[in-house]
Amino acid sequence: MTTLPAGGGAAALLAACRLVSTDPEERARASVDRSGYVPGGVPDGIVYAESVDDVVEALRLATRYRVPIVPRGAGTGLAGGSSATAGNVVLDVSRMNRILSIDPVEQQAVVQPGVLNAEVNAAASRHGLFYAPDPASTAICSIGGNVATNAGGMWCAKYGVTRESVLSLQAVLADGRILTTGRNTIKGVSGYDLNALLIGSEGTLGVVVEATLRLRPKPLRTATVAAYFADAAAAAQAASAIIAARVQPAILEFIDGGTLAAVDAMMGTGHAIRGNAFLLAQTDGYGALLEQQVLVEAITPFALSIEQTDDDARAAELVAARRNAIPALQLLGRVSIGDIGVPRKRLAEAVAGLAEISARTGVKIFVIAHAADGNLHPMVVVGHDESITEGPAKAALGEMFHLARRLGGTLTGEHGIGVLKQDWLKEEVGGLSLELQHKIKAAFDPLGILNPGKGI
Amino acid sequence: MTTLPAGGGAAALLAACRLVSTDPEERARASVDRSGYVPGGVPDGIVYAESVDDVVEALRLATRYRVPIVPRGAGTGLAGGSSATAGNVVLDVSRMNRILSIDPVEQQAVVQPGVLNAEVNAAASRHGLFYAPDPASTAICSIGGNVATNAGGMWCAKYGVTRESVLSLQAVLADGRILTTGRNTIKGVSGYDLNALLIGSEGTLGVVVEATLRLRPKPLRTATVAAYFADAAAAAQAASAIIAARVQPAILEFIDGGTLAAVDAMMGTGHAIRGNAFLLAQTDGYGALLEQQVLVEAITPFALSIEQTDDDARAAELVAARRNAIPALQLLGRVSIGDIGVPRKRLAEAVAGLAEISARTGVKIFVIAHAADGNLHPMVVVGHDESITEGPAKAALGEMFHLARRLGGTLTGEHGIGVLKQDWLKEEVGGLSLELQHKIKAAFDPLGILNPGKGI
Ligand SMILES: Cc1cc2nc3c(=O)[nH]c(=O)nc-3n(C[C@H](O)[C@H](O)[C@H](O)COP(=O)(O)OP(=O)(O)OC[C@H]3O[C@@H](n4cnc5c(N)ncnc54)[C@H](O)[C@@H]3O)c2cc1C
Ligand SMILES: Cc1cc2nc3c(=O)[nH]c(=O)nc-3n(C[C@H](O)[C@H](O)[C@H](O)COP(=O)(O)OP(=O)(O)OC[C@H]3O[C@@H](n4cnc5c(N)ncnc54)[C@H](O)[C@@H]3O)c2cc1C
Repeated sequence: MTTLPAGGGAAALLAACRLVSTDPEERARASVDRSGYVPGGVPDGIVYAESVDDVVEALRLATRYRVPIVPRGAGTGLAGGSSATAGNVVLDVSRMNRILSIDPVEQQAVVQPGVLNAEVNAAASRHGLFYAPDPASTAICSIGGNVATNAGGMWCAKYGVTRESVLSLQAVLADGRILTTGRNTIKGVSGYDLNALLIGSEGTLGVVVEATLRLRPKPLRTATVAAYFADAAAAAQAASAIIAARVQPAILEFIDGGTLAAVDAMMGTGHAIRGNAFLLAQTDGYGALLEQQVLVEAITPFALSIEQTDDDARAAELVAARRNAIPALQLLGRVSIGDIGVPRKRLAEAVAGLAEISARTGVKIFVIAHAADGNLHPMVVVGHDESITEGPAKAALGEMFHLARRLGGTLTGEHGIGVLKQDWLKEEVGGLSLELQHKIKAAFDPLGILNPGKGI
Repeated sequence: MTTLPAGGGAAALLAACRLVSTDPEERARASVDRSGYVPGGVPDGIVYAESVDDVVEALRLATRYRVPIVPRGAGTGLAGGSSATAGNVVLDVSRMNRILSIDPVEQQAVVQPGVLNAEVNAAASRHGLFYAPDPASTAICSIGGNVATNAGGMWCAKYGVTRESVLSLQAVLADGRILTTGRNTIKGVSGYDLNALLIGSEGTLGVVVEATLRLRPKPLRTATVAAYFADAAAAAQAASAIIAARVQPAILEFIDGGTLAAVDAMMGTGHAIRGNAFLLAQTDGYGALLEQQVLVEAITPFALSIEQTDDDARAAELVAARRNAIPALQLLGRVSIGDIGVPRKRLAEAVAGLAEISARTGVKIFVIAHAADGNLHPMVVVGHDESITEGPAKAALGEMFHLARRLGGTLTGEHGIGVLKQDWLKEEVGGLSLELQHKIKAAFDPLGILNPGKGI
């Protein structure tokens, strides 16, 4: 038996690793993500990995000393997935932040996990390419975290989520062995799809240390439409009309009146006076202008006013309204960010259902949505000193989930289960599915080292 | 202990199931798929499932009596995946062939597994929609088989393979329990992606009994280009030029000269006299004509002649050349259909490498390819009485695989491992990946009832 220093396995691991911190402030910071969830304690320490070897070393030690490891990217998660508490060691990979290569001909990038999403896009841009999954947090979230949560974003309406843009991964398993999944080719069916299995597994199956990303040619042109509506119902009807009109917007975002006002307050913009609900649509590619025309015709019957632009600067301003929606609401209080998904045609019902929940419970709910995918972010805002993981906020979260289920939808469209949504997972996926998921977890990580209590 | 009738478990199962056959001719037919692989024997019998209950019943009995079950759709597989031998019972789901519902607003279809791919498209078409993954075998292959192999097709260049169009599945596990995977919504990240895990699992994890498919609006218009080249190298260069020109063809198919001649012989067409290699490209959507223009400019330096059309009937004729390529070659002899994938930019090298293998081994190799994805089908043609699973044909298969690996590619782009490609799977995915895959298999099917010896 190994003799452990006082403090047990975590202390032994921290003593043996190259770059660690047990500084109380750093531990406090590493105990939370951006979900607002505050665990009971703080982790015993942080290992900063600068290389694959560092990750392997940390996980070998974790297995030897049986230390629960919380993988951490940029800590911007919204489900408590990278939150950590006493007894945990955080494995922070944010310093593994190099773009290893970009192949402009094959349209691929190979990156380390700590690279920020926006950095990949900046680098791709120099070759006329882009990386499609663009969370609103693009400037602050990491590719490793994106992979672990199967992150979505605005462009996903047309280009799919992270899963559709990750060709191959390298991940270190709990015992330190290195697994490669996927391949360098667009297509391939050799064996089970372990690549898709890792994507969205929230750090519970392996620590992503390298990703091969699919880049795409930047669209020839984009055309942007901003439409204002008297109420959310009209905007939701307009979104359905767009889908029925058979155009494929690259972006289709919904923002409600309350959120618009919060954005205006933060940004000094003037959206809210133009309507009580907002749709932002962007078409792109060779047919962008034609598609824009069809889209505008489809929504005209529902809108108060419609602004069309193909000026990039003005388009960026309009997109910024959506990107800043969450931070703007966070100025109003503590925010619990919902993330339900419903069939696209039920968007209007979902919005109405959320209003009903708010009216009945007295909890303030703002709504933004990736409208083309039926992915809504109902934002519960409480006072800065109130809890969002207990009491009315938690109850509202439960009600939202049941609303989503009633409409044939899901608990989480893109943020993941983390710790915050565990109560409802089984109800959604069923006991048999969960049983199989736990068996898969046991196959990858028999000792339960990686992110225990998260995700499944 | 259960007392088994003579003949063991298979006989007991066949005695207890509702609709079975032990007719020698039917068993012989059910022993093979379209790969040319001929197992040593024939299955003990066939269970014809007409309902989910029939499948549940058969698998419960299979578990009780420990009978290896080979799930079978339309039997058009090209890897021996649905081949069956002595001791096996074939579970044929081709009679579960109803389209259960189509939701034109949500753009979804719910179908039974035995529905043919082309039937889904015919039904979707009545609502102005289409189902994107369109194998060349569309008229004869089933959706269940498509799911089990993660089938690809021509339109996958733009719209992705089966995985990108299957939202949700119902599958019966080996013990008769019914698993639901995925969801009705476009996005969702609750738990591990068991949906993607089932897709491409070649009948080894569960029997698919229902699928919810994503349909898409039929493109407003399509524009078709047929280009003829002096040789395969020029055509491959043209394909690369298209990718470099940043257009996204919906279809980009390559056919070599020998295959063109075979197609001409079968169809009475006149392709081969126009060149020794052929590219078929189709652009679609609002920008189809603009994209066609850019595409034609990109390939002009390489082509002998280029035909452009936006006439649907003429386009269908050109597409038929590709759809009939495999049957045409099968008139020449027994065909072993390769299915390698390489990075897109290495298409020309792959074609040259195949020519070199052919020259060195004396084995005839024809080549067709989904050029936009780097997915090549090298077709080894031997005499009608020669083996394609042993001797030179098998050796050529091995060489092709190593060629694909040297070019950074994969053993199989879309047909699967089946029995034919097992020898090389470990070399491609690695021992650790295979170990995990076997653990997943054991989690789903601990007794090894489902399609033993296939896929992984
Ligand atoms: C203002 C704001 C806007 C947002 N908008 C969106 C949006 O539009 N769409 C969206 O999908 N999300 C959004 N998010 C949520 C968040 O940015 C994403 O979930 C993101 O993918 C998390 O990345 P991260 O690097 O911050 O991960 P972290 O928070 O560090 O971790 C998230 C999860 O991934 C795991 N993890 C992290 N790195 C690795 C790794 N290398 N290997 C294995 N596991 C790892 C962690 O254990 C944890 O379970 C938003 C967040 C904020 C604050
Ligand atoms: C002329 C020709 C052209 C072709 N072109 C293409 C092409 O372009 N792209 C392509 O991808 N393929 C192509 N194929 C191969 C073949 O059509 C596909 O692999 C197809 O998906 C197989 O479907 P099937 O119903 O015939 O399956 P089967 O051959 O019956 O079975 C294939 C595999 O799936 C499993 N299976 C079948 N049904 C189920 C079920 N319900 N549940 C679980 N497992 C099941 C079987 O066990 C087996 O492992 C072609 C074949 C031919 C003959």
